[in-house]
Amino acid sequence: MATDAIPQQADREPRTARGRKTQRALLDAAAVEFGEKGFHEGSISGITRRAGVALGSFYTYFESKDEIFRALVRDMSARVGQRAGEAIARTTDTLSGERAALKAFLEFAREHKEVYRIIDEAEFADPESYRQHYQGTARRILDRLKVGAERGEIREDVSEAHAWAIMGINVFLGLRYCVLDDSSDPETVATLANEMIAEGIRRR
Amino acid sequence: MATDAIPQQADREPRTARGRKTQRALLDAAAVEFGEKGFHEGSISGITRRAGVALGSFYTYFESKDEIFRALVRDMSARVGQRAGEAIARTTDTLSGERAALKAFLEFAREHKEVYRIIDEAEFADPESYRQHYQGTARRILDRLKVGAERGEIREDVSEAHAWAIMGINVFLGLRYCVLDDSSDPETVATLANEMIAEGIRRR
Repeated sequence: MATDAIPQQADREPRTARGRKTQRALLDAAAVEFGEKGFHEGSISGITRRAGVALGSFYTYFESKDEIFRALVRDMSARVGQRAGEAIARTTDTLSGERAALKAFLEFAREHKEVYRIIDEAEFADPESYRQHYQGTARRILDRLKVGAERGEIREDVSEAHAWAIMGINVFLGLRYCVLDDSSDPETVATLANEMIAEGIRRR
Repeated sequence: MATDAIPQQADREPRTARGRKTQRALLDAAAVEFGEKGFHEGSISGITRRAGVALGSFYTYFESKDEIFRALVRDMSARVGQRAGEAIARTTDTLSGERAALKAFLEFAREHKEVYRIIDEAEFADPESYRQHYQGTARRILDRLKVGAERGEIREDVSEAHAWAIMGINVFLGLRYCVLDDSSDPETVATLANEMIAEGIRRR
């Protein structure tokens, strides 16, 4: 797993490199624990065992199972956004940017299948982070679409509904081609989806 | 709530009209109970109380909380599909059909906000019904797209990924405009989404 992203709004931000490394190990272990067992069955002792961290040390970083789950949802959300952002930065037009963002998301979902289970379970275990994840992602997509509209690359009247529609495409293609079955190539799936987003499906 | 759909594969199909009415009342009550409390906190006694049915009678129709939850997921899935099918039957071309299906789904989701919570929770409480719901919905969309391709209304190369993309648009617009906030008109949202599906977003 990548070790670059840190959780937003962590209550007890570690001050040392070693502390940050332990916190990262706990979050990575929490992703595996909650991904395998779900929030209800997952446990702090399961997380510390997987992380190779003493049970008592857990409380230096997180107050409770609820708190590490919240931190994990925000961490996953930030990492998905970061991956997409990095991919977009290597492109020069809006539609190529959206294609690169989807491809990066599909690759992330294939590496971290637990991202679906964790974000989806947040609907119940941490509704506020769930809402923030989707509202934040849609806002970033809409900001990019508006830049594209200003540049004359896409239609002028792009709206929030277009952003939510694109996010829905990305999430469901990830569910179909990375989680339920991962035999398809992310590049192929992203290209097909992007052509549909760009051109629609009407016969011309 | 509509009282027309009955659960698929019910193990103890009632033989009398009165029995079917009680079973329907239990399913409607389960939708409210699980919608409000979630699967873990929801209880059989909460369901029978809401349905005005004696606790003992529950077991004439369902074996357990797990079984009524499974029946509810299949019932919700069937009713969503039935509503979409009825709306499509009143249209004459593929793209109008998809617009009508989305509008019918948005109206259903607004009337039954619990449908999101119940289908989403099935990912954890009943993964097989969760998969069947999305795979079945995508299959029906793809069947319709293929008819449209044969008629020359939409591109010839429509594929399963297009069907999953359309399903993703529908689910996320329902989440945004019917669950998180329900101040928008389903007709307007469906028209905008359908135009994007038909024409894409590239500037022409």
